[in-house]
Amino acid sequence: MERRVQPATSRRSAALRAVGDRGCRYTLGCMASFEPADPEFELRVRASFARQRMMATLGATLERVAPGEVDIRLPFRADLTQQHGFLHAGAMATVVDSACGYAALTLMPRDAALLTVEFKVNLVAPGKGESVVARGRVVRAGRTLTTCAGDVFAVELGEEKLVLTMLATEMTLKGRPGFSD
Amino acid sequence: MERRVQPATSRRSAALRAVGDRGCRYTLGCMASFEPADPEFELRVRASFARQRMMATLGATLERVAPGEVDIRLPFRADLTQQHGFLHAGAMATVVDSACGYAALTLMPRDAALLTVEFKVNLVAPGKGESVVARGRVVRAGRTLTTCAGDVFAVELGEEKLVLTMLATEMTLKGRPGFSD
Amino acid sequence: MERRVQPATSRRSAALRAVGDRGCRYTLGCMASFEPADPEFELRVRASFARQRMMATLGATLERVAPGEVDIRLPFRADLTQQHGFLHAGAMATVVDSACGYAALTLMPRDAALLTVEFKVNLVAPGKGESVVARGRVVRAGRTLTTCAGDVFAVELGEEKLVLTMLATEMTLKGRPGFSD
Amino acid sequence: MERRVQPATSRRSAALRAVGDRGCRYTLGCMASFEPADPEFELRVRASFARQRMMATLGATLERVAPGEVDIRLPFRADLTQQHGFLHAGAMATVVDSACGYAALTLMPRDAALLTVEFKVNLVAPGKGESVVARGRVVRAGRTLTTCAGDVFAVELGEEKLVLTMLATEMTLKGRPGFSD
Repeated sequence: MERRVQPATSRRSAALRAVGDRGCRYTLGCMASFEPADPEFELRVRASFARQRMMATLGATLERVAPGEVDIRLPFRADLTQQHGFLHAGAMATVVDSACGYAALTLMPRDAALLTVEFKVNLVAPGKGESVVARGRVVRAGRTLTTCAGDVFAVELGEEKLVLTMLATEMTLKGRPGFSD
Repeated sequence: MERRVQPATSRRSAALRAVGDRGCRYTLGCMASFEPADPEFELRVRASFARQRMMATLGATLERVAPGEVDIRLPFRADLTQQHGFLHAGAMATVVDSACGYAALTLMPRDAALLTVEFKVNLVAPGKGESVVARGRVVRAGRTLTTCAGDVFAVELGEEKLVLTMLATEMTLKGRPGFSD
Repeated sequence: MERRVQPATSRRSAALRAVGDRGCRYTLGCMASFEPADPEFELRVRASFARQRMMATLGATLERVAPGEVDIRLPFRADLTQQHGFLHAGAMATVVDSACGYAALTLMPRDAALLTVEFKVNLVAPGKGESVVARGRVVRAGRTLTTCAGDVFAVELGEEKLVLTMLATEMTLKGRPGFSD
Repeated sequence: MERRVQPATSRRSAALRAVGDRGCRYTLGCMASFEPADPEFELRVRASFARQRMMATLGATLERVAPGEVDIRLPFRADLTQQHGFLHAGAMATVVDSACGYAALTLMPRDAALLTVEFKVNLVAPGKGESVVARGRVVRAGRTLTTCAGDVFAVELGEEKLVLTMLATEMTLKGRPGFSD
């Protein structure tokens, strides 16, 4: 059985057509169904995450890896807090930056390396609870640049509450021998 | 029949609880059901929009006004283009800035004035087609600051395509006599 | 007499070394001296600006064009205002987006086309006065992406006041026949 | 001898007038001379920094504290890296977020608490070297919101190189008993 990998262009059109088909008002709310260029995308993301030593330092774990979507969990730890005892915005930005980057990597070709170009975060509630979960997802995947959105939710007594939202640009680097993800 | 207007705090909790209830993975994809503080919110938004002379200059029209959500349409015009003949990013940013601001205003109390604090846009496709529609929505409404997200879709032959996505911060100004929206 | 055009890499190192040499605390305050790749950069920027029909619609004029720096002036006009009678944030974002883009274009090779990837603006004072001047400048020029910063100042009775500040990413598009700036 | 503390409004005007006086082209490059509202600002910033346990976890140290300007140093550590062995963007964003926040706090009144509303970073070079220094500074201080800019420089063999630049919004919270910085 053959896995059909569409070229990037038609994949994008398909994704965007899907948005219209479902009659969604907002693209961000309509997860387009992305087709990964590399069937081994999950292995690649998990191996790269394991090399991000910052994740181990924070105690973050990689959870879900799906085409265009990645979740990372960060358990609350007192040594990651700011002056009021909440998780430091930077700790949460770190995990959602990785979640957005890896969401982009799920759709990149095998020999590509991933680079974060820029991101912006809005902090909407204090980072508290038992843990936070950062969810990154691809909004639009281009040949060179991928736009991602991410959310961080605080989890407390089984309930999720939005604490941070991110909009980010990721870059696909190709043709740099010895430099890939 | 009485219209129940919840205080801001419980309204927010309700909105956020709703997110969990529906089992949504991403807040931006789960439109919380906001309760406007001023039942006349639509009149107020339409009157304020009519005073934004920039909208008339661009030929933009206010379409949908709902609690926490506003749509503005901008028909394509050659005199709004950049050097390659596409809509100037600034023209699209202008209408989605207004859409996000007015989405926030739908939830503000009657005597409040609206101010954009900052916004960020990512441009993901050229602005072309018959028109673009800018959709602003509230992500989280606070007492002083409201976080909004917006999208601009190009409309061509009945199909919508994402061209720009925005993340913005709006401010509620109160107690400034003679200064309201 | 020969005009020496350094390759992009050594040009960047020179620029960054310059920052250290001058003992500046902040890069944004230390204008690196950029060497344009195309000696005709000013002609090219002025010709591309003339094709941005949005600029004529707003009444904006291109003033200074220097390597890595471009100024655009926007005279105050009542038909560019928001609901409180100040210049619409979008009108100011439009001119400073063009100023940042053209600042980047001054350093791009002759066959390149310019694309804005994303920008973020902070609004710090109302847009009023006789005119505003938007100043874009290159913070760091890369092969594919250029980071720019921009400011908009309101000019009133000979005094300038900061009203908006921008951070933006521009892209160099090459090898697209018939598509250049 | 009396220390004259100007009210916020005239302080701002003075700062902005200063920009014009010095004939600076860009506000970000012209450090306005801010007058702190609380003469004990440095003590307050150093005490609050000491409570940010995330700083100790990263190994970051508070260096310079001046009115409207704060520097934080982060020595390179392998356990703060991403998958290519460079400092994780999130680690650098964390220290420059704190630097911008504390730059804002230097100008806030004694009973105020500090909150980061949002920030955006552009990554312009890999985070490597012996250490990075994050410099935050106030661009414009308002009653409720303060706009800050920040830079992160990599330090290697005595030379500084820009690796990241930030634009951020900070909020002054007042009248929350038991909640201050």
